[in-house]
Amino acid sequence: MSTNRRIYLDHNATAPLGPTARDAMVAALDVLGNPSSVHAEGRRARDLVERARDAIALLAGCGRESVVFTSGGTEANQLGLALLAPGARHRTIAVMAIEHPSLLGAARALLGWTVDTTADRPGLVAIGAVNHELGTVADLVVAAAAARAVGARIHVDAVQAAGRIALGPIVALADTVAISAHKLGGPQGVGALIVRDPDLVPVLDAGHQERGRRAGTENTVGIAGFGAAATAVDVVAWFGVAALGDVLEAGLLAIDGARINGTAQPRIGGTVNAAFAGARGESIVIALDLAGIAVSTGAACTSGSIAPSAVLLALGEPAARAREAVRFSLGRTTTRAQIDEVLRVLPAIVARARGDSQRRPREG
Amino acid sequence: MSTNRRIYLDHNATAPLGPTARDAMVAALDVLGNPSSVHAEGRRARDLVERARDAIALLAGCGRESVVFTSGGTEANQLGLALLAPGARHRTIAVMAIEHPSLLGAARALLGWTVDTTADRPGLVAIGAVNHELGTVADLVVAAAAARAVGARIHVDAVQAAGRIALGPIVALADTVAISAHKLGGPQGVGALIVRDPDLVPVLDAGHQERGRRAGTENTVGIAGFGAAATAVDVVAWFGVAALGDVLEAGLLAIDGARINGTAQPRIGGTVNAAFAGARGESIVIALDLAGIAVSTGAACTSGSIAPSAVLLALGEPAARAREAVRFSLGRTTTRAQIDEVLRVLPAIVARARGDSQRRPREG
Repeated sequence: MSTNRRIYLDHNATAPLGPTARDAMVAALDVLGNPSSVHAEGRRARDLVERARDAIALLAGCGRESVVFTSGGTEANQLGLALLAPGARHRTIAVMAIEHPSLLGAARALLGWTVDTTADRPGLVAIGAVNHELGTVADLVVAAAAARAVGARIHVDAVQAAGRIALGPIVALADTVAISAHKLGGPQGVGALIVRDPDLVPVLDAGHQERGRRAGTENTVGIAGFGAAATAVDVVAWFGVAALGDVLEAGLLAIDGARINGTAQPRIGGTVNAAFAGARGESIVIALDLAGIAVSTGAACTSGSIAPSAVLLALGEPAARAREAVRFSLGRTTTRAQIDEVLRVLPAIVARARGDSQRRPREG
Repeated sequence: MSTNRRIYLDHNATAPLGPTARDAMVAALDVLGNPSSVHAEGRRARDLVERARDAIALLAGCGRESVVFTSGGTEANQLGLALLAPGARHRTIAVMAIEHPSLLGAARALLGWTVDTTADRPGLVAIGAVNHELGTVADLVVAAAAARAVGARIHVDAVQAAGRIALGPIVALADTVAISAHKLGGPQGVGALIVRDPDLVPVLDAGHQERGRRAGTENTVGIAGFGAAATAVDVVAWFGVAALGDVLEAGLLAIDGARINGTAQPRIGGTVNAAFAGARGESIVIALDLAGIAVSTGAACTSGSIAPSAVLLALGEPAARAREAVRFSLGRTTTRAQIDEVLRVLPAIVARARGDSQRRPREG
């Protein structure tokens, strides 16, 4: 179970905690106090939370009053739709079937609403900026223009975009934007919703925290880590990650029967969704894990399941081909030597998987 | 702003992170992996979460499959009511006006439901085990019997009970029970809902985590700290805290014009809600803070507000008297020397507050 010398290529599931975030969290462990308390201990905790808010605002290119801390991307997606829904002209939400389960789930959770994957005159639009499985980049300019044309507001799930491409242009096009700390070097269990209109508050709330937009004592340690991770974001450095992704992709395509999924659209660098004809993705994931390499068949939220990729099915791939997907997602810690090692061991693993994978389907 | 040598008597707002929890969190910072991922990194994170689940189950006296991790007590209250509501016979929820804002808010968030503070035939009951401001202990045997008699299920907010009195008897009487890590020596931003019926799942969900009962990547570091804090709970040691509370209470009553709130009911040890006739609580809180002593006027969630205690108003106290409340809440780190110091400085502070507090009402 040691992760020493292992090669971690599952950054889209969760990225390693960065050293800046780690230091901030260790320091925050010694801060006693509820950020809502008025005494010195409370004010110290409040100060940590508000410094982190400044860092997230800088990352998102918005005012600090627009940042609402949540327990992660899932809650940020739920809160975004819950905030926007009451002002919609009618109760149809447009959300594509390729989106992350948390965004689809947030749409389905709107009581009395119709979820439509093809709506041309929606009351509300929910869209992912970067797809979690494929790394494809949505055309938000077109999506926002279409939404505005029919008076619909737009929520963007930018969980896979934050830390990799500049958030400012995404925030500028959206009404609400969800991001998550653990995809950009912060801890799991903390995220934020960017709310462009700072006066947008829920119909009902349970506490005064976060300007009445999210009840509950703040996750002070996690928020401190999130803020520190945001300050360490370097979207220019991501071009280096993208270059390593290109090396990996070229190497994968040299394997007989290999293909890359999602190439019909622009893609973010560093996410390579491959498939090897006749080899089940889960067999390759397990064999790579035994060889010390962590990759995924798709969203961690649905891995462990034997179902084929919902994203690829939604794009019209037949189930047999959708089951062949293997997602390699790189990050700032990825090295050229790691990519070379993956490409060295993979051909034999693919060959074995082509024989094995039909005989041992994995239960979830 | 240093908290060195300060005296912290606001444990009901948040308790200090215990050393066991701190060590567990520091260790967890180095665990990479999404608990839902199938590779070695994911399995290590999953192992942390599941060990913590075992610790919470032991604390609560329930099976591990009954423990659902949340982002805190507020979300646990919301989730508990959301899980129980669909099976209710009718849409009236009984919840008293003295309850914590998060429980009242969760009740108000049930769409289409009537919130009734006096309902004698409710469809659902929500009740706090220990009141956050007064430390009063609800008679859950009577409440549960009354609920069962009319076929209503019962959710208990045990946030202020956990770590102080045994949870087993509370869990045995309830359908769902909310607890929070940061009130028992764990970090802020993590809690749990105990669900007696492990087959009770939400009508809608957005991910497979927590057996389909709560979507979103788990707060691995926070959960590790929560589990460690649960293993360090010692409800017998709380009798020592209660004894110090008794010393404090006797000393407070020796101050002219002092009274103790909540004495009409049994109270948990360690929470002393006092008032000093003619002195505003907020003036005393601020003066004690300057003297190095952290206390509160009431719930941290509503402190910073100039409104009188909603709990005392609900109990029939006039506003002027409700504004006089000062909550001293002790914990395992409290010492006799600290209590003596509070009692030494307080008479002069009360005397000054009696003159001052009318002249400088604090804005929220």
